[in-house]
Amino acid sequence: MEPLPVTDRTRITRLAQRQVTDRQALYDVLEAGLVAHVGLVRDGMPVVLPIGYARSGDFLLLHGSTGGGLLRAAAAGAPLAVTVTLLDGLVYARSLFDSSMNYRSVMICGTGQVLHGHDKIEGLRQLSEHLMPGRWAEVREPTARELAATLILRLPLDEVSVKIRAYGATTDPEDGEDRDVWAGILPLALRAGTPQPSDDTPGHVTPPQSVHTARHRHSVGFEPLDG
Amino acid sequence: MEPLPVTDRTRITRLAQRQVTDRQALYDVLEAGLVAHVGLVRDGMPVVLPIGYARSGDFLLLHGSTGGGLLRAAAAGAPLAVTVTLLDGLVYARSLFDSSMNYRSVMICGTGQVLHGHDKIEGLRQLSEHLMPGRWAEVREPTARELAATLILRLPLDEVSVKIRAYGATTDPEDGEDRDVWAGILPLALRAGTPQPSDDTPGHVTPPQSVHTARHRHSVGFEPLDG
Repeated sequence: MEPLPVTDRTRITRLAQRQVTDRQALYDVLEAGLVAHVGLVRDGMPVVLPIGYARSGDFLLLHGSTGGGLLRAAAAGAPLAVTVTLLDGLVYARSLFDSSMNYRSVMICGTGQVLHGHDKIEGLRQLSEHLMPGRWAEVREPTARELAATLILRLPLDEVSVKIRAYGATTDPEDGEDRDVWAGILPLALRAGTPQPSDDTPGHVTPPQSVHTARHRHSVGFEPLDG
Repeated sequence: MEPLPVTDRTRITRLAQRQVTDRQALYDVLEAGLVAHVGLVRDGMPVVLPIGYARSGDFLLLHGSTGGGLLRAAAAGAPLAVTVTLLDGLVYARSLFDSSMNYRSVMICGTGQVLHGHDKIEGLRQLSEHLMPGRWAEVREPTARELAATLILRLPLDEVSVKIRAYGATTDPEDGEDRDVWAGILPLALRAGTPQPSDDTPGHVTPPQSVHTARHRHSVGFEPLDG
């Protein structure tokens, strides 16, 4: 795979050693996340809103409504900054200054293209498969009215920065910290709880495969809290 | 408490029924989150980066480094949009169109003010107490050099939108969906795993109160996965 090019806009100036140019790292972060924070400029001012997304090859798909102002502006060609962040842990150093958070974050810069026709249905399917894997096959197909009310934007993954912190606490031996102060990591991850059926789901209908898949996706990585 | 004023910038046009103007709801979202997505305009283009934050009364504090380009631009008076989103669950409706996510999200619009002197130390303490409650008292005080390398910005919580979705799947009886399709919610929350001590933490040093507090904070809300 081609490494990610670093442009003036995606070059990380602060803690540059955290910049990652491996394209697979980008794919991994996008695979693990569900919600992106989409920023654009409206009347000269920034706006940042959470939006569900999916990756489709070397494109990012954003899902919105034709009634939403932000996606409408994005559909009209407003430049976007789309950031996905996974918080992986709190890093307890022996000083506050060296304390930190472990995270994986990507920012995608670009302009969205509105999908139509077959591309739109395929984009909707890919969004569905990312957010609720397997659900597409469990429910009826979208109606023409539903498709008309849905807006799907596609951005190329051309101008992207990936920043990752994934290590423990650092202690500078010159700083005179007390070694008897605990240092380490408290891992954090988005985890799934017990599925809650709606009131109108008959008692004999159990959660389908798509719910199990999403639970499993959000259950790996570390042991549950035991205390 | 005064309700949150709705301005042209914070008025929600899409699904306006999800807009909340209760100031306590704003406080609750900010209390539950750790990382904000901060958007600003640089050379006419949007940039969105994750930053640790805390609330201090009716102000938001952002924590950065004097070496970071984004915070430096913010310190110079660039208008900001600061968004905090908590993803609370996947909503499985009987159609993809009515499927959704439960979330709580706030966007704060404003301009940051750099803190100095006693205000800066107090801001740092409040950031520390939000991100790692109790840690401030467990470690040594920040040095003058560390304080000089730290940038703390304060934004008023004046222009804020709060958007919350917190309900189950809706089924329109006119849509002809099959009632034998499971509908409901898969809850999601940021959860803590088992603390991992650093290699240089002596074996007799156990995780301190601040780690237990953060674990507890990220363990309530729903039962762990049992299967």
